Amino acid sequence: MPGSTDRFADDPAFAVHEGGKLSVRTKGAITSIEDLALTYTPGVARVSSAIAAEPELARRFTWAPRVVAVVSDGTAVLGLGDIGPAAALPVMEGKACLFREFADLDSVPIVLSTTDVDAIVDTVLAIAPSFGGINLEDISAPRCFEVEARLKERLSIPVMHDDQHGTAIVVLAALRNAAKVVGRPLSDLRVVVSGAGAAGVACTKILLEAGIGEIAVADSRGLLHAGREGLTETKQWLVEHTNPTGRTGTMVEALVGADVYLGLSGGSVPESAIAAMAPGCIVFSLANPTPEVDPEMAARYAAVVATGRSDLANQINNVLAFPGVFRGAIDAGATGITEGMKLAAATAIADVVGDDVRADYIVPSPLDRRVAEAVAAAVAAAARAEGVVRG
Amino acid sequence: MPGSTDRFADDPAFAVHEGGKLSVRTKGAITSIEDLALTYTPGVARVSSAIAAEPELARRFTWAPRVVAVVSDGTAVLGLGDIGPAAALPVMEGKACLFREFADLDSVPIVLSTTDVDAIVDTVLAIAPSFGGINLEDISAPRCFEVEARLKERLSIPVMHDDQHGTAIVVLAALRNAAKVVGRPLSDLRVVVSGAGAAGVACTKILLEAGIGEIAVADSRGLLHAGREGLTETKQWLVEHTNPTGRTGTMVEALVGADVYLGLSGGSVPESAIAAMAPGCIVFSLANPTPEVDPEMAARYAAVVATGRSDLANQINNVLAFPGVFRGAIDAGATGITEGMKLAAATAIADVVGDDVRADYIVPSPLDRRVAEAVAAAVAAAARAEGVVRG
Repeated sequence: MPGSTDRFADDPAFAVHEGGKLSVRTKGAITSIEDLALTYTPGVARVSSAIAAEPELARRFTWAPRVVAVVSDGTAVLGLGDIGPAAALPVMEGKACLFREFADLDSVPIVLSTTDVDAIVDTVLAIAPSFGGINLEDISAPRCFEVEARLKERLSIPVMHDDQHGTAIVVLAALRNAAKVVGRPLSDLRVVVSGAGAAGVACTKILLEAGIGEIAVADSRGLLHAGREGLTETKQWLVEHTNPTGRTGTMVEALVGADVYLGLSGGSVPESAIAAMAPGCIVFSLANPTPEVDPEMAARYAAVVATGRSDLANQINNVLAFPGVFRGAIDAGATGITEGMKLAAATAIADVVGDDVRADYIVPSPLDRRVAEAVAAAVAAAARAEGVVRG
Repeated sequence: MPGSTDRFADDPAFAVHEGGKLSVRTKGAITSIEDLALTYTPGVARVSSAIAAEPELARRFTWAPRVVAVVSDGTAVLGLGDIGPAAALPVMEGKACLFREFADLDSVPIVLSTTDVDAIVDTVLAIAPSFGGINLEDISAPRCFEVEARLKERLSIPVMHDDQHGTAIVVLAALRNAAKVVGRPLSDLRVVVSGAGAAGVACTKILLEAGIGEIAVADSRGLLHAGREGLTETKQWLVEHTNPTGRTGTMVEALVGADVYLGLSGGSVPESAIAAMAPGCIVFSLANPTPEVDPEMAARYAAVVATGRSDLANQINNVLAFPGVFRGAIDAGATGITEGMKLAAATAIADVVGDDVRADYIVPSPLDRRVAEAVAAAVAAAARAEGVVRG
């Protein structure tokens, strides 16, 4: 065990992770034969029999409906890439801590020894009766799109790939408020998205749904447009739904005169590219820990700058979205998570800032306890309004 | 929600199960940006990177090595049979409560939507990096034998089907002490086992390993012997390893002059059959809630009577075994659960009774806190002695 020579002693992150971050607790102690007979046999047999006769009773007499599985195959973990299930586990435990802390939800990290799409889908379907929601996490694109789509089709519980939709919800919330700061409607803004991975695709979709003016997406080979060949199904979808003026060339070229830069790719954007954006532009540079655009430099040209970093203003952090989204979906007995529920979540996050909005305060602090509650209420209301709830 | 007209209000078992019996807790609260930065990003990335470089560090910095998955397909739940995963879940939550209460172990119930052997094995293999042990539960025979064997072969963590081995360990412990009460060695006893399911097979195997004198097993069609045809692989194994004198006929016929009746089958045994057993015989009648042999009647003929019931003396309850077995295996860093570890567990349970042994006290109370500790120590020592531990 660790002593004075422990090579991890200097980093408090390791102390926090010693022995893991979670535990499973029971509601009541077992100190008598009667406790044992009610918690376990023979009492439990009466509960099991009742559920066998009437399956909906499982929602009342088991923990499953309020437990979220945080499922990852460890292929796209933070900025670290494909590090495998064991190394991904601390991140999934961390998500479970955030579910508990911000939404009072139980969740269980499930890391997988397979990266095969069919096997991931089959595994999650097999364990699904144990859970009330599935938070997919850190699964690399494009596999993440198929995994999520197939699970949503097969399961009647909330399923969400957080790297896609958690990010998209918070980006939309932040952009709503950034647009307020610069005094322009979303429909007036031209956006360039750098990155066509999980987050890039989902952010693009939600911005389209929210009525963004114009949006074009660049991958590592430049803008996606009708002339590009050999694209994945997802990128083909982007070609058909974005870049209406058919721009070609590099992401830097597209930034000339653009209103919004949304960086979700890593790498580095030169100062000249930011300088060439429209006056009063908005820069969201979310690569972590090193933003694509140096935030100090960006501030010289942009009216609003946001990053993923906790030590700067305007941190775009998924924790603003996912705890409340699952809490609201579970509270409403939702059978899934719809586009309407995500849009409602984004509006709720933006509204927590409300009239206090300013260039360095477009999203609430990740520690703001009002957020998850507001998101949960908005998501639950949207689910009920759309009728995607249990009867 | 429940009111005065709630149809479940009269049974306290339902009140105990309202909302489920478990919750997932975090080690520390997240009240500052620094907490967030250590529990989640960016701090967690340093921990994940360290594990990616050195996978053994997952044993120190994640919760997985101390979490047991309690896995069931809901096909053989208590005496209720094939009631499916949702109805099985309260039983699995109950097991998790017992793991916490008696062995201070974390465990997570995983109920499966499949009953296919290949699918169960693939699912457990896929989720295995999330856990430090696999407790298989309430999976019907003969599928349970293949599921357990294949998982033990593929995984290097403790795997145990509790309906088989938990029961077998406690039965052996009880028989060791019952033999003491009647003043005879195990090698002197002739046993008739009623039931060739999960528990019957495992009890037979452990009694053979412990040096029982003679043992014969009956299924619903009578004794297993060389003349029986169309047997499953497991029953064929029993034919080859039991019933050395080649008895044929019914279980009742075999009981004439027998020393031990071990009932694991349900049904009913007539008084005449018990009356025909040897003087000073031992009756373990474990069907629950209705023993195969009426315990009052049995007491008129037998020197020692044990049942599965909590309201009678000598309750044979798996809770005496599984918490300590997994605790000991995990404490030792065992790569599996061997026959030697199970035998050590049985001896440890019997030894808790020690010199206090008498006809109505052959096993400790299921609430006896000394048991899991003694079992864990014995199992860990056996694992180390056999060298089946991580380097």
